[in-house]
This record gives sequence, C-alpha cells and structure tokens, in this order.
Amino acid sequence: MDAYFGIQPEHMRYLTGFALDDGEDRVAGNSGRFLVSADEVVVLADSRYRLQAAAQASGARLEATAYDLAATWPGLVKSLGARRVAMESAAISHELWQQLQAAAPEVELTEASGWVEAHRATKEPAEVERIKSACAVADRSLAAILRRVRPGQTERELALALEWEIRTGGADSLAFGIACLAGPNAAMPHGSPSRREVDIGQVLLLDFGATVDGYRSDMTRTLFVGEPAAGDLAIYEIVAAAQSASMDLLRVALRAGLPAPSGRDVDAAARRVIVAAGHGEHFGHGTGHGIGLATHEQPALSRAASDEPLPSPTVFSVEPGIYIDGETGVRIEDLVLFDRTRTDLERLTGFPGDVLVVGV
Amino acid sequence: MDAYFGIQPEHMRYLTGFALDDGEDRVAGNSGRFLVSADEVVVLADSRYRLQAAAQASGARLEATAYDLAATWPGLVKSLGARRVAMESAAISHELWQQLQAAAPEVELTEASGWVEAHRATKEPAEVERIKSACAVADRSLAAILRRVRPGQTERELALALEWEIRTGGADSLAFGIACLAGPNAAMPHGSPSRREVDIGQVLLLDFGATVDGYRSDMTRTLFVGEPAAGDLAIYEIVAAAQSASMDLLRVALRAGLPAPSGRDVDAAARRVIVAAGHGEHFGHGTGHGIGLATHEQPALSRAASDEPLPSPTVFSVEPGIYIDGETGVRIEDLVLFDRTRTDLERLTGFPGDVLVVGV
Repeated sequence: MDAYFGIQPEHMRYLTGFALDDGEDRVAGNSGRFLVSADEVVVLADSRYRLQAAAQASGARLEATAYDLAATWPGLVKSLGARRVAMESAAISHELWQQLQAAAPEVELTEASGWVEAHRATKEPAEVERIKSACAVADRSLAAILRRVRPGQTERELALALEWEIRTGGADSLAFGIACLAGPNAAMPHGSPSRREVDIGQVLLLDFGATVDGYRSDMTRTLFVGEPAAGDLAIYEIVAAAQSASMDLLRVALRAGLPAPSGRDVDAAARRVIVAAGHGEHFGHGTGHGIGLATHEQPALSRAASDEPLPSPTVFSVEPGIYIDGETGVRIEDLVLFDRTRTDLERLTGFPGDVLVVGV
Repeated sequence: MDAYFGIQPEHMRYLTGFALDDGEDRVAGNSGRFLVSADEVVVLADSRYRLQAAAQASGARLEATAYDLAATWPGLVKSLGARRVAMESAAISHELWQQLQAAAPEVELTEASGWVEAHRATKEPAEVERIKSACAVADRSLAAILRRVRPGQTERELALALEWEIRTGGADSLAFGIACLAGPNAAMPHGSPSRREVDIGQVLLLDFGATVDGYRSDMTRTLFVGEPAAGDLAIYEIVAAAQSASMDLLRVALRAGLPAPSGRDVDAAARRVIVAAGHGEHFGHGTGHGIGLATHEQPALSRAASDEPLPSPTVFSVEPGIYIDGETGVRIEDLVLFDRTRTDLERLTGFPGDVLVVGV
C-alpha cells in the first residue's frame, strides 16, 4: 500500500492528532478525513476547523475540503504519489467508495479493516494513565452523589447530578450518556434515564464514565435503595461471582505465565457462573469490551469474540449482568489492565464492588 | 424495490419509532438496523435494547441481532419475501455491503441515497411544534445566563452554565456540544469551549441548541462583553445585514407567490453582502442547513447546494458569519420556517438579534 485513507474520528486522533469532539463528526462533512503515506499525513479540514486542525495535527499537511470529496480525490492521491490506497472499509460508505473509485479508476482501492483497531487495542503507558485519570474522576463522582440519593428522586435528576460531578470534577466530558435505571428499568441494559422515581426496596443501576484527554472510563454499580430485596441480593451475589470468575481466569494466566486467555474464554468464565445459577437466558450481552479513545473498541469479550489470545497490554471492562424483564437488573462493571509483563491484573476502577445500600 | 434496508439512527426513528440516544449508535452494534417492506417493519435489537424497541417501535417485528449480520441476512430478507433491496448506501459501509452481497448473492442490492432525507426535509406540523419547543428552551436558557456573564469566567464555565439551564429547562438533551468562544477563539466556527477567560472589549460567541422529543434547535448569538470594539461592531452590522438579505429573499418569494428560491440562492443573498464588505474570504461555511431529528439535514444552503427550489414546509438555519484568524469572529443564527402556503417567513428563534452588551 502507498497510503491509508481513513474517516473514523478516533483513528484520525490516533494517527494525526486532530480531535473532533463527540458528535462533531455528524456535522463535519469531509473535515476529518485523512490520508497517511510513508512520508506524509494529510488532514482535510474546512474553514470551520482549520485553526484547530493546524494546532492539533501539527505535523500534517492541511487541505481544504470540498463538498464533493470525489472531485478533489484524484489530486489528493496524486500529491502523495499513491497508486494503491488501503481504505477504512468498515467505516467508508458504499456510496463514497464507489464515487472515489469512479473519480480515479487508475488508483487501486483495497479493504483495510481492523488495522488501526488492532494498534489501538494495545495501550501505551501514557494511554493507560489517561484511562486511570478518567476512572478516578468517575470514582470520585459516584462517591460524591451517593449520600444525596433519596427515594422520590427521578432517574433523570440523579443522572444529571452525577454528570455535573463528572464534568466539574476533572473530566473533559462524559464518556457516554449516563444510564441511571431504577427498579424494573434496570432490566434494560442500555436504557436512558426517565422520570421514574427511585423507590425503597429496589435496585438503582448506574453505568457511566468520564473522558480525560480523549480517553474514557466505564463503570457500573448496582446500588440498593433501602433494605435490599432478597431476590435482588441473590442476583447480585451471582453477578459478583461471575465477575470474579473472569478476573480469576486472567489472574491465573498472569501469575502462572500461561498464554493469555481469549476474549471468548474470559466471557465463558463469567457466563458459566450465571448459567449454573439458572440465569443463562438473562445475560444477553458480552462480558466486556476494550476501551480507550472509544468506549467500545477491541478486544471484545463475548461468545462471538475471537479465540485468539488477548493483546497485551490492553484495557477492557468486565461486566456480567442479569436482567429480568419487568422486575430487576444487576450489572457490575470494572475496568482492568491486562499486561503480560506483570504478575497481577490491575483493577483501574477504584470504587468498591461490595453491596451498597443508599437512600436511608 | 421490495424492501429498504437502513442503519441511520434518525432514519430508524423516523420510519420505525425506535430511538437510540445520541452516541448510543456507537455501541449498539447491529441493534438499530432495520428493514421496511410494503407489509412489514423489521427492527434489529439485541437483548440490551429489546424492551425499549418493543415499546417505541410498537408496530414492528423485532429480531434479535447476531454479531455477524451477514449470517442472518439471507433469512431476514427471505422472511420479507424481498428479492430487491434498496440500501442506505451513504451510511452502509463498503465492508458491510460486500458481506451482505456475498451472503445472499441472489438478492439484488441497489443504492438508495437521499430518499429518507428528502422526506425528512419536509416537516409535518407536529415536527415543527417540537422544533419550536426546542427553540423556546434555548431562548429561555440564554436569557437566564446573560446576567451571569462576568469577565474572568472561562468559556467552559459559561458553556456548562448554559447547558445546565437547557437540560433542566425542558430539554431532553443538548442538540450538540455548546460552542462558547471568547475573543479570538470566536474565529473558530466550530471550536470547543476552553479555559480561556471572557474579557472586556471582546466578543463572546454562543452556538447551542436543545432537543425536545427528538427534534433539535440551533441558534448562535455573538455578544459583546463590555463596550464593543469598533471593529467588532462593524463586523456585526455586516453579518446582521447578510442575514437580513437571505431572509428578505425568502420573504419576497412568499409574499409575491414566486417559486421558492434554491438553497444556493439563499446562500448567495447573504454572501453577496459579506463579499461586498470585503470579507468574502472570511466566510468559509454555508449560510444554513435544515434541522429536525438531526442538527444538520436537508436542505443545504450553501455555494455547493442544489439549485432546485427549497422544499416546503421546511425548517432551516440562516447563519452567516465573518471570522478573522487570531482576532475575532461573529455569527448570527436563527431558525426559520419556510412554508409556501403562508405569506411570511416565520422566525422560530425568539431571542432578539440586536447588539447585546453583557458583563457590565
């Protein structure tokens, strides 16, 4: 390949330095497309982004974008002397691919899928530090709102209070929209905060994260509002045991110097506990996901994940859950650093995972 | 065509009712893909979204998603009896297209680009009402923070204060990340709030919007902190005149029953004023954009926009600006309703566009 053409915002940040804010890619048009050759990095930025791109992608050549990228494509590719271009085919639309192919038929376009993702899965020390900082903001923010949880507050009110702590407590932004789900709403693993009120005797599930210098954290705690219901508590113990099973598998591998387990292995360890407890059909999602510049990135830890050994060093979530429609839901989620040069797994989430009663 | 296959979250909401939160599409995997045939709507939703999708897309058939969409594609298409599928080719990745084509070579895939966008550009009364509600929240929120602007506050502090007003003042969420840019930072049309302090004698540019029931507002005001600098004031007058020129063109067409102007015409009207004042090269972006379920949607109003008449009724922004690197920037942005069954343009942004001095 003579050049790589990409459009994913995290890839652009990783490879060029130019960082579009969350959601900005929705309105950026062709700004944020980029080309990398052996000698040069080219970043497309229209007048709205030119000053920012010049500051952040200091080594790059900036090119103004046209509304019609295809019209500028032949000149762009020629300026890099590229005859074969690796294309980010999992992100580039079918329409754009066809347009670029037609605009410069002599340039060979090939599918490049997962290249940058694989690089990003392995974390540099500076990347781990940023994730740790994001975890610390989230830990402190949860601690700050705990004493303020009261029956009768709505999910939305609590979510907003937690968001305020995160965003005034050292984060650049939220990593993603906070899930704050009370009682039966906790059965929706990715539900949004509603006007439902927090009620005594029910769970309160909080899934949230901070972004610090582009890197994200992600944690879930399921709290008990008042005296825990016996059924909720029993489910909590199963989920906690499942999480421990996945972490133990990783720890054993590190301590014994065994090959890294696969994402599928780590998922299976947690899932086995939940299936044995009779809740297999109540755990529909995967056990975890890599995290970094994106909230969800490689490696995946799920039934469908690769059976190749995990990369190292890498950071991912371990987050089994049990969800019972119309009744309740429990998830416990921590981030861990898996590094084969060490003898133990490092838990990056600092907040304890014990049963915690609030609102009394 | 026997069916339409889509993946854009706004299209899914528009056609099926299932609404993923902003950013949720980044982690939803294949959840939120959908197929529409003459008889049936099929929504893909994994266990995380099943309850939500069932409630929101009440008429749809829900299908669990697999990690590998291609594996389930032949059965899905067959269940609809579809032999020719129109594909959302501007959003579907080249990789996914190739995978689906290979999985069911007997199914003919054709490019469908802009179909749903064209429908969405024309607004129903209920859609206009939601945009108006979002505008009203933004108007009130700006009014609420004006008296709190003080020299020495940072852009970030002010942006957060404005966001808080919007989100506790009737909005479901922000329409997009707030731009709050002081002095020379206002020269970045899409800059992010920084730790720069608001200073006497400089401009303060605020670009923000609210989301109400999925529909968005978008407005920009450029305020003067203390006594306006003569240069800033002169630029403000040019931008205001440019905005009036675009609006007047639209008003004349409505009052005289002329054909609707094109997005290119509306852009040209504002641009002519700015070029005549010698600032042509300081106005790099388009004059406006449609708005609704997305912040930027059809119709476009720019040099590259269509020269077809604008759709009707439609809602869009009119937002000329002048940006001088390292010095200052001014933009004034209002939403308007253009409806050919009426005799006047309706300004949906209620907040006045006059010169406004704050911080004193």
